[in-house]
Amino acid sequence: MAELMGSFTGFELDGDLEDPVPAAAVRLPAPRLAPPAALAEICTAEPYDRMTHTYGQAYRDLIRAFRGRFEGPPDVVAYPRTEPDVERVLEWAERAGAAVIPYGGGTSVVGGVEARGLSQAISLDLSRLGQVLEVDPTSLAARIQAGAAGPVLNEQLGEHGLTLRHFPQSYELSTLGGWLATRAGGHFATLATHIDDLVESVRAITPRGSWESRRLPGSGAGVSPDRMLLGSEGTLGVITEAWVRVQARPVHRLTTSATFDSFDAGAEAVRAIAQAGLHPSNCRLLDAAEARLTSGGDGEHALLVLAFESADHPVEPWMDRALELVRTHGGRADPPRGPRAGQSGAWRSAFLRMPYLRNSYPAIGVVAETFETAVTWDRFPALHQTVSAAVREVARGIVTCRLAFVYPDGPAPYFTVLTPARRGEEISQWDEIKAAASEAILAAGGTITHHHAVGRDHRPWYDRQRPDPFAAALRGAKAAVDPAGILNPGVLI
Amino acid sequence: MAELMGSFTGFELDGDLEDPVPAAAVRLPAPRLAPPAALAEICTAEPYDRMTHTYGQAYRDLIRAFRGRFEGPPDVVAYPRTEPDVERVLEWAERAGAAVIPYGGGTSVVGGVEARGLSQAISLDLSRLGQVLEVDPTSLAARIQAGAAGPVLNEQLGEHGLTLRHFPQSYELSTLGGWLATRAGGHFATLATHIDDLVESVRAITPRGSWESRRLPGSGAGVSPDRMLLGSEGTLGVITEAWVRVQARPVHRLTTSATFDSFDAGAEAVRAIAQAGLHPSNCRLLDAAEARLTSGGDGEHALLVLAFESADHPVEPWMDRALELVRTHGGRADPPRGPRAGQSGAWRSAFLRMPYLRNSYPAIGVVAETFETAVTWDRFPALHQTVSAAVREVARGIVTCRLAFVYPDGPAPYFTVLTPARRGEEISQWDEIKAAASEAILAAGGTITHHHAVGRDHRPWYDRQRPDPFAAALRGAKAAVDPAGILNPGVLI
Repeated sequence: MAELMGSFTGFELDGDLEDPVPAAAVRLPAPRLAPPAALAEICTAEPYDRMTHTYGQAYRDLIRAFRGRFEGPPDVVAYPRTEPDVERVLEWAERAGAAVIPYGGGTSVVGGVEARGLSQAISLDLSRLGQVLEVDPTSLAARIQAGAAGPVLNEQLGEHGLTLRHFPQSYELSTLGGWLATRAGGHFATLATHIDDLVESVRAITPRGSWESRRLPGSGAGVSPDRMLLGSEGTLGVITEAWVRVQARPVHRLTTSATFDSFDAGAEAVRAIAQAGLHPSNCRLLDAAEARLTSGGDGEHALLVLAFESADHPVEPWMDRALELVRTHGGRADPPRGPRAGQSGAWRSAFLRMPYLRNSYPAIGVVAETFETAVTWDRFPALHQTVSAAVREVARGIVTCRLAFVYPDGPAPYFTVLTPARRGEEISQWDEIKAAASEAILAAGGTITHHHAVGRDHRPWYDRQRPDPFAAALRGAKAAVDPAGILNPGVLI
Repeated sequence: MAELMGSFTGFELDGDLEDPVPAAAVRLPAPRLAPPAALAEICTAEPYDRMTHTYGQAYRDLIRAFRGRFEGPPDVVAYPRTEPDVERVLEWAERAGAAVIPYGGGTSVVGGVEARGLSQAISLDLSRLGQVLEVDPTSLAARIQAGAAGPVLNEQLGEHGLTLRHFPQSYELSTLGGWLATRAGGHFATLATHIDDLVESVRAITPRGSWESRRLPGSGAGVSPDRMLLGSEGTLGVITEAWVRVQARPVHRLTTSATFDSFDAGAEAVRAIAQAGLHPSNCRLLDAAEARLTSGGDGEHALLVLAFESADHPVEPWMDRALELVRTHGGRADPPRGPRAGQSGAWRSAFLRMPYLRNSYPAIGVVAETFETAVTWDRFPALHQTVSAAVREVARGIVTCRLAFVYPDGPAPYFTVLTPARRGEEISQWDEIKAAASEAILAAGGTITHHHAVGRDHRPWYDRQRPDPFAAALRGAKAAVDPAGILNPGVLI
């Protein structure tokens, strides 16, 4: 693995494989909180549960777990089986003055599920609320519990010939509730890019009652209640279920890839496609380094992965026009094929494998970080250049970029950083990279996150990004439904 | 006019044309508020200004103005020229304890701009902040002031070969700020149905500072600051400008119309088209009565107006597939043509003429109301039936329906009610119709409004529709940025 990584990256890795600190050797601080008898059945303070609910899945999390550093575990992990269970946990937490951190698949890469700096904390694991409850085949919608992970909900929808088609990179572990709370990005590179776009209604339990919107295909009745919960990251309520839009499985699919002499030329083609109103399902542009690392690219050309899909009609006219735009902008395209063919298939496979590969970085001595943003097209070339340069300067490693999502008015660039670890100093290495990236993004007019959420890691830059009166309004909203401030304190507010 | 209306509707109108009370005969209550000297230049208490800012454009408003009833005019009308002017008006209002009602084109049909029940009120007319300030041709976006009315902003965008393509029925008078504050519905029957979908960032002045989001094509950084302003109906801040997505003018356009034996059969075709992912620009289904009234229909068949448009590519493949779906569902379609042809052209012309025609209703003795909702497909047939029946029972006139917007998971039905007036009792007639319609909509699972906003007229039903903790959160948010509660009190909160 270290050799493979070395050959790909050119890093001179020492080849030593460090062993993780075994779980049995980890000493957790004693729990500072004990559940009341009535909740004993759904609560535990077992070290295994506390350890597995201490961190998310950022590299910063992996390295701490690897080294056996579990300094801020939750005191208790609760596994509610019903909504009344959730309510009882909130009541208890309010009485006890303990924080409640809603926990879905635990795949946050921004410190979203971590009890960092909290004096008493309950991790509220929603995995037992994990079923598809109802399907409306007429409206193409389904009522799904928050704790349902990607494969589970899609399997259950599949029994009805339907699919949510929301596939974040964390798909195998992450949950509907987590996607909603963090405004997750999914499968589609255009149009329904965020889970937000698939929501009919959301139901959440707050310390002051249940917050459930009416199930509607669209509405203009005042400020959207759903949009206030979307992205609230557990600070306003515990999302327990939602009605979401589903669809028939696509039967018409075309995929191709195209190469460009430069990333900028590829970006111009992507802009043209995004502004043409063709709505490809995939339209991801990889720079030459990323294409080489993940898709067998030659290291000199940018690679565009382009796909159209439909459950209703053949998509040739859409693909044909997109390929005209590719050629107009100097791209050389392969003939379109069915799905998972050629380089685009290689990319997809690498995309889904990536989170698992990453788990080996602490052992082989590589520091990794991925971060992402969105910016308007007029500012994109400068953002790409300044962010890459700023990160390269502190990381002294490889910095690659792809356009993960595209809009008519701008792309969502996604950056990957890999650098040899200074063993024992990985966290400060990572912190320096995160700070350099975030500063450069804000300076270049981007958002601190397009789909990874804010969590605790992005807070300093998020606080500068958001308008002050909005921050005051959000605090006011939270105080009204969570007066004791127990819900995921430290995130957003 | 009365004869024409009688022949169309079958109403036995008396033919008497009542004259409106002339403006000179109207006696307004004396203003209870005088602007400070520093604001004298941009404020007026002239009767003409106060009268023209008393009401919106609902029938309920027209009939009161017609009868010379201006019981709750604003005390002062302010015409800010700059954002600092807006800030100064807010400061004065807070000191004086006066309400501030942001006013765009004054086309609210829900009592949104009315000082109903307020003891001191300033109408804040934004018409002098009415320019396109900046165009970004690369990202296809423009920075536009809130007071810009539809024709003005489109003319200015047209100088760059661009258009916003947001055409509500009130287009000629209504403004960008009004659209944003009320989540207005526009041109597109699918996809970008609301102005919400065209927003990059919003700037508003609150009593506690300016609320301006970063200009972004997409973001997942916490709760959306823009989505909290969209639909806030002037309660959180005075929207002064926004960056919006614009586009090249469409050059490829195909329009057709199709007839169906029943509205339900047509609705099934519309559902199929909406769920096929074809994204027509127009997909409006008129019931037989509405088709006869507005589009020369035979009174027996439902009429579908269907159109596709693109600035980039010919739209034949899209139209062809949609027409296949029309035929599959028993529709008989005309061959597609360029825009504004045949019945669809007649409908468009009637659509834009309608608000002007309506101005004559008080004179000829007709009570009119239009209301709209959205509902999921599974509930639509029952909603259509129960709402129509409930309104017909109290209105004892004509009730027609069209599907104005369509989503994969449901339509937005739009109802028109016409009935002979009991002269002098029109307001209670209207109130009865509004109450019957609203009760039936809520009972059938619809939203109290899809794109007309809440205002003061929909408040009782809106309060029942929204989740209680959300209402508390919204009040908390408002208290943080508008602690004196001066911004459009009575609307939403």
